[in-house]
Amino acid sequence: MKQMDTRNLSMVMDLYEMTMANGYFHTADIYDPVTFDVFYRKNPDGGGFAIFAGLEQVLDYLEGLHFGPEDIDYLRSLRLYDEKFLEWLAHFRFTGTVTAMPEGTIVYPNEPLVTINAPLIEAQLVETAILAQINHQSLIATKARRIVQAAKGRAVSDFGARRAHNMDAAVYGARAAYIGGVNSTATVLAGQLFGIPVSGTMAHSWVMYFDDEYTAFKHFAEIYPDQAVLLVDTYNVLTSGVPNAIRVAKEVLEPMGKRLAGIRLDSGDLAYLSKEARRMLDDAGLTDCRIVVSNSLDEYTIRSLLDQGGCIDSFGVGERLITAKSDPVFGGVYKLTAVHHGQACRPKIKLSESFEKITNPGRKKIWRIYDAIGHARADLLTNPDEKPDVRTEYVFVDPEKPWKRSHFSHCTAKELHQTYIQQGKRVQTLPALSDIRAYVQDQLRHEIWPEEQRFENPHHHYLDMSPAYYEMKMNLLRQTRGQGSL
Amino acid sequence: MKQMDTRNLSMVMDLYEMTMANGYFHTADIYDPVTFDVFYRKNPDGGGFAIFAGLEQVLDYLEGLHFGPEDIDYLRSLRLYDEKFLEWLAHFRFTGTVTAMPEGTIVYPNEPLVTINAPLIEAQLVETAILAQINHQSLIATKARRIVQAAKGRAVSDFGARRAHNMDAAVYGARAAYIGGVNSTATVLAGQLFGIPVSGTMAHSWVMYFDDEYTAFKHFAEIYPDQAVLLVDTYNVLTSGVPNAIRVAKEVLEPMGKRLAGIRLDSGDLAYLSKEARRMLDDAGLTDCRIVVSNSLDEYTIRSLLDQGGCIDSFGVGERLITAKSDPVFGGVYKLTAVHHGQACRPKIKLSESFEKITNPGRKKIWRIYDAIGHARADLLTNPDEKPDVRTEYVFVDPEKPWKRSHFSHCTAKELHQTYIQQGKRVQTLPALSDIRAYVQDQLRHEIWPEEQRFENPHHHYLDMSPAYYEMKMNLLRQTRGQGSL
Repeated sequence: MKQMDTRNLSMVMDLYEMTMANGYFHTADIYDPVTFDVFYRKNPDGGGFAIFAGLEQVLDYLEGLHFGPEDIDYLRSLRLYDEKFLEWLAHFRFTGTVTAMPEGTIVYPNEPLVTINAPLIEAQLVETAILAQINHQSLIATKARRIVQAAKGRAVSDFGARRAHNMDAAVYGARAAYIGGVNSTATVLAGQLFGIPVSGTMAHSWVMYFDDEYTAFKHFAEIYPDQAVLLVDTYNVLTSGVPNAIRVAKEVLEPMGKRLAGIRLDSGDLAYLSKEARRMLDDAGLTDCRIVVSNSLDEYTIRSLLDQGGCIDSFGVGERLITAKSDPVFGGVYKLTAVHHGQACRPKIKLSESFEKITNPGRKKIWRIYDAIGHARADLLTNPDEKPDVRTEYVFVDPEKPWKRSHFSHCTAKELHQTYIQQGKRVQTLPALSDIRAYVQDQLRHEIWPEEQRFENPHHHYLDMSPAYYEMKMNLLRQTRGQGSL
Repeated sequence: MKQMDTRNLSMVMDLYEMTMANGYFHTADIYDPVTFDVFYRKNPDGGGFAIFAGLEQVLDYLEGLHFGPEDIDYLRSLRLYDEKFLEWLAHFRFTGTVTAMPEGTIVYPNEPLVTINAPLIEAQLVETAILAQINHQSLIATKARRIVQAAKGRAVSDFGARRAHNMDAAVYGARAAYIGGVNSTATVLAGQLFGIPVSGTMAHSWVMYFDDEYTAFKHFAEIYPDQAVLLVDTYNVLTSGVPNAIRVAKEVLEPMGKRLAGIRLDSGDLAYLSKEARRMLDDAGLTDCRIVVSNSLDEYTIRSLLDQGGCIDSFGVGERLITAKSDPVFGGVYKLTAVHHGQACRPKIKLSESFEKITNPGRKKIWRIYDAIGHARADLLTNPDEKPDVRTEYVFVDPEKPWKRSHFSHCTAKELHQTYIQQGKRVQTLPALSDIRAYVQDQLRHEIWPEEQRFENPHHHYLDMSPAYYEMKMNLLRQTRGQGSL
């Protein structure tokens, strides 16, 4: 398959990463491994979950990471960094270990999505590129799922490239939207790179180029008799567009033994126009002609159109999907959680005035707890050496209500992280994109409570802690305060 | 300078462009030139103008456009296109002519920003990539200007990469933000590619890595004695961060004959904390120590911080700049305006139920009209053969109030488009990025009314028409209606 990114993206970083790296080079044991977690704090659009996406591109980036001579020259020109450090950088490769949720996992705030265990400098230098990739793709995958959910089984196609925040956003956005459940994309490069089904109809320019609308439709139908979807709103939908489409169906396609595949509405009152168009098409015997609509759609407009009885078979969704317009920031962060000296692991915590913003320190495991019928009841953080037995009574701590005594029983626990890169080498084959998409659908259908999937006031998934993990966190909090910091 | 885009972006298109191209190949005279205009309909955030950006990347794209063997193979695999067409595509290059506003021009709705005159298929195939580039960069440049305006002369740095919609959005977003007036970016690749000044301080991880905050600050100051900006909110700003920063200024830097460059606040009540920190720094004699703040800032939060008397010297602005969070869609469109047959030029119009959405048809010129003191009073659309003399009484039509008789006098008119590509060849050297940025500032300082620059209810710039142009548009409207379409 064609490679988009022969680019070396190593220089996509914030300057402070390089500044800190040069600083560590001179003051710290740079080969001591550290642990960083990627996590986020708030579900987009007030939803009940997010879809984790972008892992494949993160792994590609880490594998390819290096600094070429022109990169070193540029960094030298800043007059901030020591020559010995720049020399070291010229031979830099990522040698760390990466564990992560499988791409497409349904995820929740404050859980480690990706964990990097690597020598200090290496781990510090990769912050921005990892975050940009995961933040972007998780944002779009999550938004796409909301739109697909609102469409209630009708086809949804990504039409967003022209309003995307530049080329990558169009292409990786299409990838993420497909993971989130859209059926196809209009973006050709995304089809080519990732094997996503591509779809498209015609623009107003096709209709305007010819002398009249009928001629334009006729030519299109002659060239694409099996898949003509005619754009009917260039002049007037009900007095010109639909009648001309029906005429082409009768005069051009039926004599060829073909049926008109569809019409597209791209402006006006889509609920009203789709119902009127449906009636006109049905009256003409074109009951199998599909109605596609587009024009600034999102989950809310789609829901409203369907509530009004709009006769719509398929949605083309553009700008509000590809920019996640209603909430365009996925606030994933990358935080230091542990520093290792020889055999000793020292957990690290970031304090905050608000308890929810205090990080979950230390190396850890994240488990999903399923009840007897396979629903995901909660997620659980433990120390790395714990293996919770949730079949019988397993007592845990709800960190929001630590005074409560809660337990799991008759449950099963699945560890959510897998190891993808071990000491710089890939150790796992990645699933096909269509399998990632199926994994999302499977979780939402069988594991995730419908109450977490509704748009309004969704149930908030629990992130519980093992008693040992909770105690470690509380002790660290007390020690850090003890240092005179709070 | 390093090239980012050795990528061939030719396949960044919507499928319908290729579908129409194949259709034209079989039904139309594909070498007849057509004209497409890029324009937008609404200023972002209800503002009074936008900043046109992204032209350089559009020209690079058009120059490089071609379809390689793997592209052709992919298109063949879709089983939509004729073999003769695919053969033709293998030899495709862009041979058209491109006129545009200079990059950095202050622009208004419904004006042609870029005009493509090219053979039909060529013009059709470039729609999406042109729009994605211009929509993205114009969006971010315009947003950046609003943020810079709110900062009232204080430095603003782009910290957005980690929340950008993927890599291009970070890098070209940094370019656009610089055009819009930010002083620097944290994104290293943007500094390397475009020569933008780069800036950065330290992350919480630096502070957390060391055993205590003082040690972390001390090491940093020793390595960067001339530019240490210390992040003071890892534990507690007023009881730990600022006191430790002051101690480092006294115990580490002053003995070296150096001054502490600054502190950074990244959480909490920035108005309160900046005032308290300022007082503590001043009491310690560190009156020259700058206070940098960051954390989900935009033009509104910056205005509020300054209204509250926040003691802030510099703003780091991230996610709300790089995603243009408050209004993340710049709705530029690409519309057919004329078809040429031999010597004849046939203007084309797209109708709509709402008058503002009816396109401005035909080939045209766009002029900016300046009054005697050099303020931009209005913009004016004319036919291509007109040269308006606005020194004495020049009668024009205000298309929103065509019954009014209006005129310019004692004015000058500047044609806004320049020719950048002529029959496929670049015919103009592009300005340096710093000159584009200076051009923006110059227009805003000297030409654009302050009333258009305020955030609330800005004055709406007039887009007037010459009587001849207006008459042509009205005639075309009547004819198109006459076709039975409205």
